[in-house]
This record gives sequence, C-alpha cells and structure tokens, in this order.
Amino acid sequence: MTSSNPEKPASGHDMWGGRFASGPSSVMEAINTSVHIDKRLAEQDIDGSLAHAAMLAACGIISSEDAEQIAAGLEAIRQDIRAGCFDWKPSLEDVHMNIEAALKERIGAPAGRLHTARSRNDQVATDFRLWLRAACERAIEGLRAYQRALVEKAEAHFDWVMPGFTHLQTAQPVSLGHHLLCWVEAAERDIGRFEDASRRLNESPLGAAALAGTAFAIDREMTARRLGFDRPMANSLDAVSARDFALEALSAATIASVNLSRFAEEIVLWTSRRFGFARLTDAFSTGSSIMPQKRNPDAAELVRAKPGRIAGALQGLILVCKGLPLAYSKDLQEDKALVFTAFDDLELALAAMAGMAADISFDRDVLEAAAGEAYSDATDLADWLVRELGLPFREAHHVSGSIVKAAEKKGLPLSKLPLDEMQAVEPRITKDVFEVLSARASMESRTSQGGTSPVRVKEQIAVWKDRLKG
Amino acid sequence: MTSSNPEKPASGHDMWGGRFASGPSSVMEAINTSVHIDKRLAEQDIDGSLAHAAMLAACGIISSEDAEQIAAGLEAIRQDIRAGCFDWKPSLEDVHMNIEAALKERIGAPAGRLHTARSRNDQVATDFRLWLRAACERAIEGLRAYQRALVEKAEAHFDWVMPGFTHLQTAQPVSLGHHLLCWVEAAERDIGRFEDASRRLNESPLGAAALAGTAFAIDREMTARRLGFDRPMANSLDAVSARDFALEALSAATIASVNLSRFAEEIVLWTSRRFGFARLTDAFSTGSSIMPQKRNPDAAELVRAKPGRIAGALQGLILVCKGLPLAYSKDLQEDKALVFTAFDDLELALAAMAGMAADISFDRDVLEAAAGEAYSDATDLADWLVRELGLPFREAHHVSGSIVKAAEKKGLPLSKLPLDEMQAVEPRITKDVFEVLSARASMESRTSQGGTSPVRVKEQIAVWKDRLKG
Amino acid sequence: MTSSNPEKPASGHDMWGGRFASGPSSVMEAINTSVHIDKRLAEQDIDGSLAHAAMLAACGIISSEDAEQIAAGLEAIRQDIRAGCFDWKPSLEDVHMNIEAALKERIGAPAGRLHTARSRNDQVATDFRLWLRAACERAIEGLRAYQRALVEKAEAHFDWVMPGFTHLQTAQPVSLGHHLLCWVEAAERDIGRFEDASRRLNESPLGAAALAGTAFAIDREMTARRLGFDRPMANSLDAVSARDFALEALSAATIASVNLSRFAEEIVLWTSRRFGFARLTDAFSTGSSIMPQKRNPDAAELVRAKPGRIAGALQGLILVCKGLPLAYSKDLQEDKALVFTAFDDLELALAAMAGMAADISFDRDVLEAAAGEAYSDATDLADWLVRELGLPFREAHHVSGSIVKAAEKKGLPLSKLPLDEMQAVEPRITKDVFEVLSARASMESRTSQGGTSPVRVKEQIAVWKDRLKG
Amino acid sequence: MTSSNPEKPASGHDMWGGRFASGPSSVMEAINTSVHIDKRLAEQDIDGSLAHAAMLAACGIISSEDAEQIAAGLEAIRQDIRAGCFDWKPSLEDVHMNIEAALKERIGAPAGRLHTARSRNDQVATDFRLWLRAACERAIEGLRAYQRALVEKAEAHFDWVMPGFTHLQTAQPVSLGHHLLCWVEAAERDIGRFEDASRRLNESPLGAAALAGTAFAIDREMTARRLGFDRPMANSLDAVSARDFALEALSAATIASVNLSRFAEEIVLWTSRRFGFARLTDAFSTGSSIMPQKRNPDAAELVRAKPGRIAGALQGLILVCKGLPLAYSKDLQEDKALVFTAFDDLELALAAMAGMAADISFDRDVLEAAAGEAYSDATDLADWLVRELGLPFREAHHVSGSIVKAAEKKGLPLSKLPLDEMQAVEPRITKDVFEVLSARASMESRTSQGGTSPVRVKEQIAVWKDRLKG
Repeated sequence: MTSSNPEKPASGHDMWGGRFASGPSSVMEAINTSVHIDKRLAEQDIDGSLAHAAMLAACGIISSEDAEQIAAGLEAIRQDIRAGCFDWKPSLEDVHMNIEAALKERIGAPAGRLHTARSRNDQVATDFRLWLRAACERAIEGLRAYQRALVEKAEAHFDWVMPGFTHLQTAQPVSLGHHLLCWVEAAERDIGRFEDASRRLNESPLGAAALAGTAFAIDREMTARRLGFDRPMANSLDAVSARDFALEALSAATIASVNLSRFAEEIVLWTSRRFGFARLTDAFSTGSSIMPQKRNPDAAELVRAKPGRIAGALQGLILVCKGLPLAYSKDLQEDKALVFTAFDDLELALAAMAGMAADISFDRDVLEAAAGEAYSDATDLADWLVRELGLPFREAHHVSGSIVKAAEKKGLPLSKLPLDEMQAVEPRITKDVFEVLSARASMESRTSQGGTSPVRVKEQIAVWKDRLKG
Repeated sequence: MTSSNPEKPASGHDMWGGRFASGPSSVMEAINTSVHIDKRLAEQDIDGSLAHAAMLAACGIISSEDAEQIAAGLEAIRQDIRAGCFDWKPSLEDVHMNIEAALKERIGAPAGRLHTARSRNDQVATDFRLWLRAACERAIEGLRAYQRALVEKAEAHFDWVMPGFTHLQTAQPVSLGHHLLCWVEAAERDIGRFEDASRRLNESPLGAAALAGTAFAIDREMTARRLGFDRPMANSLDAVSARDFALEALSAATIASVNLSRFAEEIVLWTSRRFGFARLTDAFSTGSSIMPQKRNPDAAELVRAKPGRIAGALQGLILVCKGLPLAYSKDLQEDKALVFTAFDDLELALAAMAGMAADISFDRDVLEAAAGEAYSDATDLADWLVRELGLPFREAHHVSGSIVKAAEKKGLPLSKLPLDEMQAVEPRITKDVFEVLSARASMESRTSQGGTSPVRVKEQIAVWKDRLKG
Repeated sequence: MTSSNPEKPASGHDMWGGRFASGPSSVMEAINTSVHIDKRLAEQDIDGSLAHAAMLAACGIISSEDAEQIAAGLEAIRQDIRAGCFDWKPSLEDVHMNIEAALKERIGAPAGRLHTARSRNDQVATDFRLWLRAACERAIEGLRAYQRALVEKAEAHFDWVMPGFTHLQTAQPVSLGHHLLCWVEAAERDIGRFEDASRRLNESPLGAAALAGTAFAIDREMTARRLGFDRPMANSLDAVSARDFALEALSAATIASVNLSRFAEEIVLWTSRRFGFARLTDAFSTGSSIMPQKRNPDAAELVRAKPGRIAGALQGLILVCKGLPLAYSKDLQEDKALVFTAFDDLELALAAMAGMAADISFDRDVLEAAAGEAYSDATDLADWLVRELGLPFREAHHVSGSIVKAAEKKGLPLSKLPLDEMQAVEPRITKDVFEVLSARASMESRTSQGGTSPVRVKEQIAVWKDRLKG
Repeated sequence: MTSSNPEKPASGHDMWGGRFASGPSSVMEAINTSVHIDKRLAEQDIDGSLAHAAMLAACGIISSEDAEQIAAGLEAIRQDIRAGCFDWKPSLEDVHMNIEAALKERIGAPAGRLHTARSRNDQVATDFRLWLRAACERAIEGLRAYQRALVEKAEAHFDWVMPGFTHLQTAQPVSLGHHLLCWVEAAERDIGRFEDASRRLNESPLGAAALAGTAFAIDREMTARRLGFDRPMANSLDAVSARDFALEALSAATIASVNLSRFAEEIVLWTSRRFGFARLTDAFSTGSSIMPQKRNPDAAELVRAKPGRIAGALQGLILVCKGLPLAYSKDLQEDKALVFTAFDDLELALAAMAGMAADISFDRDVLEAAAGEAYSDATDLADWLVRELGLPFREAHHVSGSIVKAAEKKGLPLSKLPLDEMQAVEPRITKDVFEVLSARASMESRTSQGGTSPVRVKEQIAVWKDRLKG
C-alpha cells in the first residue's frame, strides 16, 4: 500500500476552499451527517424503540426493569424534543445516534441493551415507513378537504352554464358544477393511490437487524402489532434494502400534484382579465397598491409549479435507487430529504387549493355569454338532425356545418337564424330545432350518464356529499 | 387582421430545410400525424366500436341491420390488419380515422352512423385504457415468470452460504436462497402496483362524447360491461381529460424497472472476474472470439439501463400533463409513444431477467469462502456474549471488536483463534463460543422470523411455491 | 458450479410467453440487437471506416490496394443503403457488424484488415459524435429559420400595442414586436448552447481501440482531421466511455424545447376565443367540419408538449450513465434511441414554430383595446409624479393608486378622468399628465435601453436583421 | 359575482387541519413566503441596490445625498446580516422586501426613492444571476481542486498496471495513472460547461423594470459594468422572464455529478473486499467498532447518490418553466430552492471527491495480479500476429483465440505456454512473441496517442501539471 496524507494534499494547493477549510474531516462530517434532516423522524424513532424494548422484555431478552428505564428515558427525551430543548449534535450523525446517546446519558447502562437484536438499518426503515404512513394519511385528509370545498362550490353552481373547451377553443357548453366535480373525481383516484401506497408499505422491518435477522428469540409480530403494522416483512434483506415504498408514495404525490397543477392553471386563466370568469379574494391573491383592481393569483401559480419539486424528488429517488445492490448502502440516506420536501410541498399545495376552491367566486353573466359564443351549439343541431330526421351522423355533421356557415355570414347565433335559412340547407328542419339551440339548452340536453346536464350533476353532488360525510 | 402567406415566408430564406422542404403542410402533417404510433391500438379500437355499435342498436339509435354491417365490416378490417395488408395512411392522421375511412369504403352509409353519440375524445381514452389494462396483465405475467425462476433457483440453493453486504463490504453471511427470495418479495409488490393501477383505470370513458356527454339515450353500462370495464366513468369531462391512469401505470413500470436494475447490477458484479460468484451461459452473455473465457453480461447491463427509458417516459408524461386545462388538448397525443416504449422495454427486461434467473449458476466454494472473510462472524460473537454472558449489547460489541483485532493481528479467522486469546479479553468466554463462529454457523443461527437461516428460507420457499402454483 | 438448463426453466411453466416463445435466444436477440436503431449511423460509420482505412494505408499498416478495395466496397454499400436495398440483419446485432459483414461478402479478405487498430468501442463513439455534430447543426439551422420568421413578423408589428402580462394579469402595454423579439433572444442563447456542445464534442475517439489505445503506429491526427474533428481525444479510456457530450446536447435540446413550449402556450392563449389576439391559418391548425370558425391550434399544443419526450430522454440518459464504471458497458447502447428521438422531436418542433411564427396574424383592434384595459397606465402616472413633481417613488405609487380607485369608481379609464378629480388627490397635477395616459403613450414612453418603445424595438430589429443576414 | 366567505368554508368542516389551523391567511403566507430561501441572495441584493442607487444619482434621477444615505444604510444592513442579527420577517415575503423595509426604518424617506425605475422582477433576476455566476465559479474551483488531486495521484502511479474493464470483465491491462487521468479529462469538460453557462448568463437584467423598461433616462451600461456584467440584456421582457440560464447551470451541475458518480462507483468497487484494489482512510470512510477492518466508503456512496438531488432539481425547474407565458409568473419563485440545493450538493460532492482522490491508496500487488488474469494479453498476441506475420486482423483474432483455448486447458497464462504449443496453432510464431505477453508488456506497448503506455501517460501528466499550475 502506498499511503497518502490526506491532511496535506495536492502539494500545498488549498483543496479545502470555502466552508471546508478545515480539511477532510469537515468535508466528511458535512457530507455524512443527516441529523438536520432526519430529526423529523424523532417521534417515530422513539415509538419504534419503545416497541422494541417492550418486546425484548416480553421475550426475556432484557429485564423488565431495564425496559422500564428505557421507556421512561425515551419519553423524557420525547418531551425535550417537543419542547425544542433537545441538543441535536451533527457529530452524532443522525437522529438515531442522537437519541441513543441522550438515552445513555440519561439512564446509563440499560441504554446499551436497547440495541440488542436491532441495527440502524432496520431501525431507520421502520421509522421511515411510520413517517410515510402518517404523511399519506395527511395527504388523504388534505385531498378530502379539497373535495369538500369543490363539492360545496359545485352544488352552488350546479346549473350555471360555462364554455367547455377543447384545445382551449370553445367547444360545447357545460355546467360549472360538472366542471368542478371533474377535479373531485381526480382527487378520489389520488386518495386511492395514497391508500394503496400506505397499505403496501405497512409492514414492519423491525427485527431484520443489519440485514440477516438475528439469533435472539425475538417476537416480530409483537413489535409489528404495537406499531400498527399489518405484519412483519418476510425477508430480512428486503426489509433493510427496499425503498420502492418511498418511490410509490412519491409517485402518488407527483400524480396528485399534476392533477392540482391542471386546476391551478384553470384558476390562472379564469381570473385573468381576458377570461374574466372568476375572482379570488385577497386571501389567495396579491394585489398591487398602484392598480387596486389587480389580483395576481400567486397561490394558484405556486401550486401550478409544485410538480417541479415533487416530480423532481421522485426522479431524484429513482436515480438514487437505480442499480443499487443488496443490502443497505449509504446512498439510501438521500431518501429522506427528497420525501420530506415533496410531502411538505404537497400538503401546502392541497391546503392552498382547498382554500382557493372555497374562496373563488364566479361571474355568471360572463360565463353564460362565453358559453354561447362560437357556435357551441353546432353539435346540438347535428344531433337533432340525427335524432329527429334520421340523418347519418357524418351527414348531419355536414349539414350543421353549412348552417353555421350561413349564420356566421349574417353574424347571428344559430338561435337567431331564421328558420327558412336553415331550411334552405335542409328542408325538413322544423321550428322544434330551436329548443336545442342555446348554451343552456345544449347543457340541459346532455343527460347521458356522466353528462353535463344539471339533473345529472345534481345526482353526482348527492353521491359525493354522501361519500364525504363524516 | 394582417395576413401572412405561409407558403413564402421569411423573405426568400428557405425555412423548410431538409425533410420539410415542401412547406407548412408537410410540417403540419409530420407533427400532427400519429398513426405510425397509435395503430397499435387497432384491436382495442375495433373492440370499442363493436361495443358501441351493438349498444346503439340495442338502444334503438341505429338499426340492427346497420349494426350488423358495421360489425362485419370491422371484423373484416381486423383480419386485414392482422394479416398485415391494411393500408395505413398518415394523411388520415390516426388509427381511428384510418379505420373509420376503411369502414366507409367497405360498407358505405352505415359507417357514418357509427360515430353517433361518440367522439374521438372518448374513443381514444377507451382504446388507451383497454391497451394499458392488457399491458399491466402482461407485466404481471412477466413478473410471475420471474418469480418462479427465482423461487426455483432459491430452492436449489436454500442453504448455500454467501457474503451478505452492506456498503458492498462483507457484513454477515447469508443464504443464497434468502438473497434470491428478496427479489421475489420486491416483484410481489410490483405486481400489487400493476394490479392496483389496472383496477383503478378499469372504468369506461365511452359515452362521454367530446367532453359533455350526449343527448342520445345511450346505455353506458352496456358498453362498459361488454368491454370488461367495472363501470362507466362518472364525469364526462374527466373521462376525456384524465391521464393520471397512464402516469400511475408508468410509475408502476418505473419502480419495477428500478427493482430489476438492482438485481441486474448484482449479476454484473457476481459474474465479474473479481467476484467470481456466478456464471451466465452463452444464452445471456456475449463472448469474445479472442478471449474464450470472457462472458460479457450484456443482458444484465441492458436491464440495468432500462430505468432510463422507462423513468424517462414517466417524467415525459408528467411534463406533458402538467398545467393542462380541461378538457382534451392535443398535447395528450404524446401519451401513447411514451407508454408504448416503456411497456415494451419492461416486457423485454422481465423476460431477460426471468431468463437470467433460470440460467445463472453459482460457484459454491467461492461463495462460502467469501462469506467467511472479513470477520463476518464478529456480530455473532457479540450476540453470543449478550446471550450467554449477559453483557449489554454495546459492551459486547466492544469486546468482540477487541477479539477481532487480536485475531487480525495473528492473521487468523475468529474460528481459529485460540480460546485463551479470547479469554485474555473476556475471561468468561467458554469453548461453546466456537459453535457460532463460522459463516455457516452464523447463517444457521439467524432463525428469527424473516431471517437468513435455511430453516426460515425453506419455509418461505414453501409459501412462495404454494402462492405461485397454478 | 451447479448448472441449470435455460431451455427448460421453471418446471414446465412457460416462462417465454408472447413474443419470446422460442426461449432465451429470442429474448437475448431482442434485448441485445440495436440495428433497428443504430442503422441511422450508417453514413457516419462508413465515413469513419474510410478515414481509418486511408490512415492505415498511409501509415503502412495495410497496403494501398487493400485500402482501395475497402473504400470502393464501402462506397458501394453506402449506395445500397441510400437506395434502400441494403439487407439489415438483426442477428448481426448492430450497424457496424452489418456493414463489416457486407464488406467481407463484397471484397473478401481485405475486409478483415479494416478492423486493425480499431474496436467497436471507439468506432461507435466516433459515429455517434459525428451524428450529434450534424444534429446540432440542424438544430441551429432550425433556430435560425425560427428567428428569421420572428424578426420579420416583429418588424411588421414593431409599433402595435398589446398588453404585457405578469401573472397573466394585464400589467403594462408593450409593443407586439418587442414581445416577439423576446423569443429571438431566447433562441440565440439556444443556438449558443448547441454551438458550445458541438464544439466540445468535436474530438476524435478513433484510435482509442477497445479502451487502452494500440501498439500499432497509427496516426490519430490524420483521421481526426479527415473527419473534421478538432483533435484526437487525449485519453483512450475517456474516448470510449464518455457520454457527457450526449448529455450536454440533450440538455441544449431540452432547454430549447422549454423555450419553444412557452411561446407555444402563448399561441394557444392568443388564438383562443377568450383572448382573440391572433389567428392561425389552416396550415397550422385543424378545423371542425361542424364549426367552421373553429381552429384548434394543434401544432402549438404539440410543440408545448415536446419537452415531454426531450427532457424525458435527457433524464433517461442521466439514469443510464449514473454510476457506470470505466470503460465501455453495454448500458451505453441505450444512448442512441434516446438522442435520436429527442433530436427528431426538436427538429419537428422548430419547423412547426418557424411555420407558425410566419403564419400567425394578429387583430390590431383587439390588442390595442386589451392593452388599455385594467389601468395598465397606472405606473406611467406614478412615474410622471416622480419625474415631474419629485415625489418619492413609493409615495407616487400610493397617489397613483388613489387616483385609479377614483377612476374605477366612475368606471372611467385614467385618460378620461377629469383633471380636478386627480387634483383632489394631488393638487400639483397638471393637464400635461394626459400625455402619458394611454396604452400607446405608455408604450412609447419606455425608451430605456431594451425597453418596449417602438424606437427601441426598431433598433433591435435592425440589429437582428443584420445578424441574421446571409 | 357570488361571494364565498373563505374564513368559514365547507359547512363547518375544518379545512385547515394541522399547521394551517388559522385559515386561509396562514396558508397563503406559508405558500407565498420565500424569505427563508431567498435570503441567501442578500449580498447580491445589496450589491444590486448599491449599483442602482449610484446610477440613479449619476443620471440625476435622485440626489447624491439620497444616494449616499441609501448606500450607508444598505452597508449597515449588510453588516447586520453578516453578523446574524438581522431580523428576517416571513410576513415581508422575500429578501427584497425585508431589506427595503429595513432601509426605510433606518434612513426614512430616501429609501422610497431607491425603487425608482426598478421593480422586483428585474431585481430578483439580477440577484439570481449574480448568485449563479459565483456558484459556477465555486464549482470550477472545486473541479480544479479535484483535478489537482487526481493528477498528483496519477503521477505517483503512472506506471502501475491494473486491469482495464469492459462490461466489468477484465479486458486489457491499463496504467492506473491513465485511468485516473480519464476523470481529469471529464472534469475539464465540466469546467468548460460551467464557464459557458457563466459567460452566457452574465448579462444585466437591471433596468428592465417590471417588464417593459422605463421612461426614466437611466444608464443600464453603468449598472451592468458596476456589477461585472458584460452588457445589459437587450430585451426587457426577456430580462424578467428568462430562466434558461438557470436550466443551463443546473444541466452543467447534473452532468458533473454524473461524472463524479461514475468514479464514486469505482471507489466503492475498488475498496470492496472482492476487489481489494484500494483503501480509504478513516477520513473518508466509516468503520465498525465490531469489525475493525471494515471500512464503509460512505462518502463515495453519498457522492454516487448525488445525481439524485441535482438531476431532480433540473427536472424540477424544467417542469416549472414548461409552458409559462411571458412575462413574470409567480411559478418562477420556485427556481431558487432548486438551484441552491443542487449547487450545495455539488460543492459538497466535489470537496468529498477531491478529498478521496487525495486520500485513496492502492495495493500494487493486487492490481498487477488482477491485470494479468483472464488472458488480458490475448489481443496483444493477435496484434503481434498482424504486425509481425501480416495476418489479417480477423484471422489473427481467430488464431489468438485458439491459443488462449489451449492455454486455458492447461491452466497456464499465455506467457507460460510453451512455444511449441503456440506453433501447433500457427507455425510461424517465434519466441519474440513473449515480449508482448504479460500485463506490463501489454500496457507498455500501447503507445498510440492517448494510449495507456506509461510514456504516453507521463506526457499527459506533464500537460496537466502545466495547465493546472497557478
């Protein structure tokens, strides 16, 4: 072995510029320490240790007295942490070693027995799963609040007519309530994804020890039960190495954030001067002291941007995990910063969207006028031709187009075009056709299951109110 | 309006270099056409149209004669497509218009009635869900085959001892069967994700029409049932606009590919000269005519790289969907190329991994020797001190470290270190200690639930064989 | 070694479902072959071989006769490929082996000498760099065409007034020409990135052989020069292993696509009914036979979506390269599919954007009316107060806000608010203030360097026309 | 307008669970505030304001006295911030408003004049560019330190022989120095990318004001010069809206991190028990109290994982920017957290890699033995046959393979295989062949430009020492 002196590298060049001036040890501490991030696992870490100590005592591996001292010590540490008076030390590297050292200081020798039949590898996996389970629950609560706000707003506007867009072009009139319920449906699938992720991750790694299990006669069912896990994980290598549960939770968060970004974009559009559909109060917009009527939809823009950090975190963890051999590698330490940031951002975005869904108010006249623009009832005319005159769809489509062209030439909406002009194109048309010609008539006619007719929307609102009750 | 002549842009400069020399129309066709990609939906498109036509007839919206002609025409087109003699036309833009045009050519007028109460928007959403449902099933089958190959290999090696690594450093001996079963567990969660994704997407968009539903008295339950969907989607805007189902399926594919990449990395390591643990036959490696003993694990490397395209596709679709307002926007056309590539790659990777799992053979002597290196039984010594002498874990850890240091100085493994040398560190140690000192003894002792002891591994193999049966 | 029979895996279960029914060899061929993708490198491969053969002859390593036969054979193969009558064989794996085999068939023994002092590793790296260099050039040409179309359109509208937005809220009037020039600036930086990427990758890997260089006395300068490279790469391991050049080119493509997606979003907004700012002809939109006035901005939407595939490809290649040890690993084979797709998509997006920039026409009245809405001249009033009355900026801001409030109450624009109403807020205001109150006056007043005043815009147009000349 | 009361949303349901209990205003503040992140721009913000104030005075827009007071006030605030006694207020939203408010408190009225002819939009763009310029410089310094450590280590090992791998299979012997220099080359390209990014972003947005420029007669050249920018940006809309400079800097950081991850992977492999090539001291590994010989290469693993956060940040910002219309949107606020994290991580990774490059020591015997394994001189034999006997390359390849097969059968390396055994395959072989048969001979023979022969490596080291001097 040749040896190099890392304290004096690179022939006098100062390799340790800036904040690493003190050399390798400061670099190593800086890159290695994680307590500034993983201290958020403190509650979970204490819960896990309490369960482990109780089990060790129940199995006769440590004495009840030791277990009691450990429990008392951990609860005291928990109080310190909650009170903000716990002294976190970066040199102790992570949350686990900080708490273990504090316990030793507090209760002495018995602290040394807590780590029997356990390792930091199964400990951190346990803590992280507990944290993510709770984070998924918070996300679900946030989505429920958002759904409730949407359903309430939908109910108040179940029969307001607005333009339905394709390609952002006016296409067909729809009910505003119907539009809002679309996002309730999307949120329900998001909830489903968090439930599935939460259920799938709810297995206990505790007792896998470093990677191979242990020769101590431990009871993994007992710790699993106590921590609310459905069961112990079946393979000790898997228990300490798997992070697909975190990838799945991040995927659910990413998809939810993408769904939110879509409604956020709509809020930005609707509250713009050009659309003029809706208005946010000061609670969710920022004003300008110079242009008092101006309301920047800052919160909606920030939600629109949130997939950035959340999908970025997902991609980040994919990169970290790709190609990692079994079992634990230090790379996995990066999982927590990515997950914490993503779930913080999601929680914030959900609260902001629930708030905006409740806050937003609409301009009925603008919406109705816009809904009637651009011959949005042309397909209704075509459908009438099919239904009443038996034209094949493609032919009806063609006839309707010719009539729209005639109306356009006169600068009239279809509902104002004289019947004889229509009959010039298709003689069998009768005055009954005018019953379907108007934004409102169009909306009301679409009574197929899932359609935009207010009678359908009202049914859906009833379904949702029932589902969201309690 | 000022008008510009797009045929003669930019003052004589040739804007349409290269393959776009013919000007705007060729650019527009090139960017707009998707039939080269979406023709893979042909079977689903035909199935959807058959269901729709049958429903229209059952509801009295079209005649039975028309429905019969449509069905016969579509089945004839299906045969043409399967036989490879269907003439796909890029100018007809997509799979839907190609088939519709062919139908019209074949049966004339009735073809024009098929599109009643339907639009390309609900049609493509239906086709795409059907395709993805089948793709998820194929992925599940691929994962099952992979699991079977792993379980069979694990059974043949349930009590072979190999080094368990942390940080790629030798840590503790584990059973080779145990190691292989770890990937069976991961695959099971992957299957769960595909099942959840498949179940969640299994709702019918058909009947949502362009975006608002329809005024025709259609029966969406009937088409849903016929196409194997669990139910119609509840909101027509959602039906044509949602793509979170595709994001979820891509997430499942991405996570599965990351899991595969980890085992692929291990195969690359194990078959390297430096490890010498395992060997692939020519079926899954490429040789060198000049170095006959050389076997490049090409297939494993390619699987290791697969998260590239699959996670890339996921991130791609996230980008496409982010911030899109309701309802259908053309952006969504990009979904299919991304999803098709990702699932093709996953299918290939699964077949290759199942193949390698069956193909790989191991060198028992090398594995066992490697397992015993590097004092991998040091934790067993420490555990013995806790169990038999009642030392606190942290103290036992310290004693064991001192004994390892003594053994290292003499260049001996722990199992060969004289008892008195151990007693010099801790006098209470007895010769019984040697029962736990050896890679095999270490492995066998870890009998905790989920642990690496062959008795546990055998149980797990039985569980898996039972689960994978049938 | 235990051995397993890969032909009969998994106890009778059919592991090779679907397209892999024929077993491991079909899986291996399917995952390993790349000729369907890398045949796009055929021209570069032939160019590289021609340069290599000429150099081998010049250095006396092969005879001139052999070199001549090789050259003739390769040129004949090139003609076959161009004519579409070359028989690509997947079983020969890649473009290099296909061409080598064809050469052997055509000229016999001398073909065997071409591979002297070369390997597929340096060969593919050379081909790929040549391809990317050309692709960067095409991207630059596409960006130039786009810039020309923008500058021409900007010139025609240099003094048209439109609303400038922040947060999509009307903020201050700007010149339409100024707005369009913004994208010319962004495109210029995109060009710079492609130039830098192209320059940095323009080094020759040829002669690095498999990874270590060669003992033959080759002349790497000669092949580098002949292929238009600036120099040979300095380190043979680097030459065959580096792919950062492809990551850089993909980054440039990604950033360009993001810039394009922003203008594409504006086109979607501007051509929407709610904005009504602009109109695309049929050349870049799709219509509806039923709503003749409807124009879906399909091409703009597709460009807006393009970052999906391009940034997805970038993330894909990042994943492939992450953590790969030296030297060549098969994972790197994935680079080409990702890069080809991304550059194809970029080329298409650029052509479409250049086309739309030329095609789009604007509605002057709508733009001017929109520019004057929403008290977009409120900051002009404040600036006037600072300039003419010496108020501190923050106070002027406050005064202006009060006057806007007064105007809003009366439903008047600032330019119509009676002077005495203004003086009620700030008595020193004179009638001169009306000179700055109007969208046009506001726009014209902003004459600072880079500002939106038409005099400044005209200067910028002159600069750009000069720069884009020739 | 219907109005909703955001303080009492959702019929009594508590929408504001958890940390948002106080309702919409707390949500809005939480999502909107950025001072906890952007306070890192404080120095740049003060520098920008100093330049702006000096220019306003020079142009006669504010008085010299005001400018002096502003400068004194800002410098005092700078001292407070450096001393850690500045009171950052989240309610003031961002760094700009915090400093502006503090200035007003400190100097009163003149503070209100500082914002003349400026807006937060051009202010934050200026600050951010200044920060990124400095961050690029730090990255370049970090890369230089890393190069120096590598070159020094390469020099000490320029003629040590080690196995060169392809597919992680032993391929051909290479010089350890040559291998290390490969990463010096990669780092040089990384430096080039940071230089290009830094140069391209070095334009001043200051004076673009909100988006349209200003009517004040400001001097943008003066502020640009004072802040070290090459020139003012040419288009005011571009100045406040562009973020492609941040995407480019993140791309450079991502690519650098991928290059680092590759060497980090090698360190993990080399220091593993199975490879046994190298050793890190305690300065860059963590030990185990129980297995004293164990050294976990934590720092290398963490560097290997760093592309996760850095490429994740890149993808995040791509998502944020995609499809954003002009001019400033609040989404852009997300840029800073992403960029700060990525550059912090890169800086740390560079310091750790420079440290490890200096710290690592190698085992000469293990390397040399490994280099000679697996017939790594088989291509040397083939090359000798071409060179000395004139065989075509492909035939020589075949002969060499037959000889290797014969040697393998006898369990001998090529250098120990009797000459007559070779001659049995190819009679013309002479004893001279043995000069090329050995790992060392193989390495030494590869003297082509860029090849692995120590004579070439020594030249490269001289080149690099010269380049890195000073």
